[in-house]
Amino acid sequence: MSGFPIVELFGPTLQGEGQDIGMPCYFIRFGGCDFRCGQRDDGTWRSDGWVCDSLHAVLPEEVRLAPKLSVDEIINSLVELTPGPDWVVFSGGNPLLHELGDLVEALHDNHYKVAVETQGTIWKEWLNDVDLVTVSPKPPSTFQKYGAGTIDTFMKRLNGPRVVVKVVIWDEDDIKWAEWFRDWVPGVPFYLSVCNDWHKPDGSDELLGRLKWIHETIVARGAKLGDVPILPQLHVLLWGNSRGR
Amino acid sequence: MSGFPIVELFGPTLQGEGQDIGMPCYFIRFGGCDFRCGQRDDGTWRSDGWVCDSLHAVLPEEVRLAPKLSVDEIINSLVELTPGPDWVVFSGGNPLLHELGDLVEALHDNHYKVAVETQGTIWKEWLNDVDLVTVSPKPPSTFQKYGAGTIDTFMKRLNGPRVVVKVVIWDEDDIKWAEWFRDWVPGVPFYLSVCNDWHKPDGSDELLGRLKWIHETIVARGAKLGDVPILPQLHVLLWGNSRGR
Repeated sequence: MSGFPIVELFGPTLQGEGQDIGMPCYFIRFGGCDFRCGQRDDGTWRSDGWVCDSLHAVLPEEVRLAPKLSVDEIINSLVELTPGPDWVVFSGGNPLLHELGDLVEALHDNHYKVAVETQGTIWKEWLNDVDLVTVSPKPPSTFQKYGAGTIDTFMKRLNGPRVVVKVVIWDEDDIKWAEWFRDWVPGVPFYLSVCNDWHKPDGSDELLGRLKWIHETIVARGAKLGDVPILPQLHVLLWGNSRGR
Repeated sequence: MSGFPIVELFGPTLQGEGQDIGMPCYFIRFGGCDFRCGQRDDGTWRSDGWVCDSLHAVLPEEVRLAPKLSVDEIINSLVELTPGPDWVVFSGGNPLLHELGDLVEALHDNHYKVAVETQGTIWKEWLNDVDLVTVSPKPPSTFQKYGAGTIDTFMKRLNGPRVVVKVVIWDEDDIKWAEWFRDWVPGVPFYLSVCNDWHKPDGSDELLGRLKWIHETIVARGAKLGDVPILPQLHVLLWGNSRGR
């Protein structure tokens, strides 16, 4: 086996988003994605707002450059980092492109807990063996589309891990979409996250300003999301848009 | 009845700390406290770091100035605010100084959920009727002391609400204390929060810098708190140290 394309592997850091915001963790970014957030149907990309902040894990010409690591090499790389956090976060790209069952098992054998971030388009059985799944469906400003029933089917197959939904918000259409989507996942802890406009090299002030705007807009719209936390991207506040943090 | 001393009542805002960080809410700050965080045994106060950030809700000469509101007046004040959040947060001071059972019932009748923040020194039966209790025990840098078994007894009486522990951290002694205290509350969701040094008028950069320091210090100490989230005070990042936000 030739191993998995590992675009980034780092830590200890802190989870920046979702239910476990602030949680100490290691972070593994897998290369490859079935989405192109920010790309229009005609192939052009939007120039601001929601463009994937991890294109180095998405574009094939960049993913091709990533080292391919086996399960043992990944475990060894983690063990070489400063010890501390209990959690390992899989992100991407979409980690569901890969057959990660053996890696999850090896991480558990080494007493790590495993959290996965995914848009909920691709199912793999190993997902039910992890500890936390954050499903982050992509709202309209990304220009991405789900097949009919895709996410619905995905959510229904989740059985075992703690499951939360996180919707990243750029504009009011995204808020409307989150209001709509929430009715599809009753009872699932639901979070909003501020879209990180990585075109701004240090986006803290802008990020916090946009968080306020989301809060005010939801209130002005009648607060259908009146029990949904709105979170910054804590890692961007702490470390800016640098890689490897 | 003469009503409750209400130092602040405002919203919609966002919960800044703990498990519900980012949650839309209304905020009611009750006057009166059995603690004097930052005051030494000899009566002097520390000049930096952890000094209570709500002394207007603690010092008798200030609390005396607060309007006394009945249950009906509190409900009416909330209803007059822009509607939206599901949650009402009781803070202080220590809201456990007051007989708030009728208020909790009235809030539930009006379809609000109730969250309470307290240091865990004083018990009242109404506490088991609320929806979320955040116990925030005070570590050494506050100079406050608990009687033997006080918090232990308090935690054991909690039966019904969702319960979480939040420890606000100023220095390394506070981190050591949190490591120690955590063993007393196994299984209870546990959070660290960065102490807000309100002597700094806009403490965002300092707050984030101190969050990084807490993270690094915990890792350097061997990460006994390796599965404990470290959170900023989101309200301070968003609105600085202004009152009524």
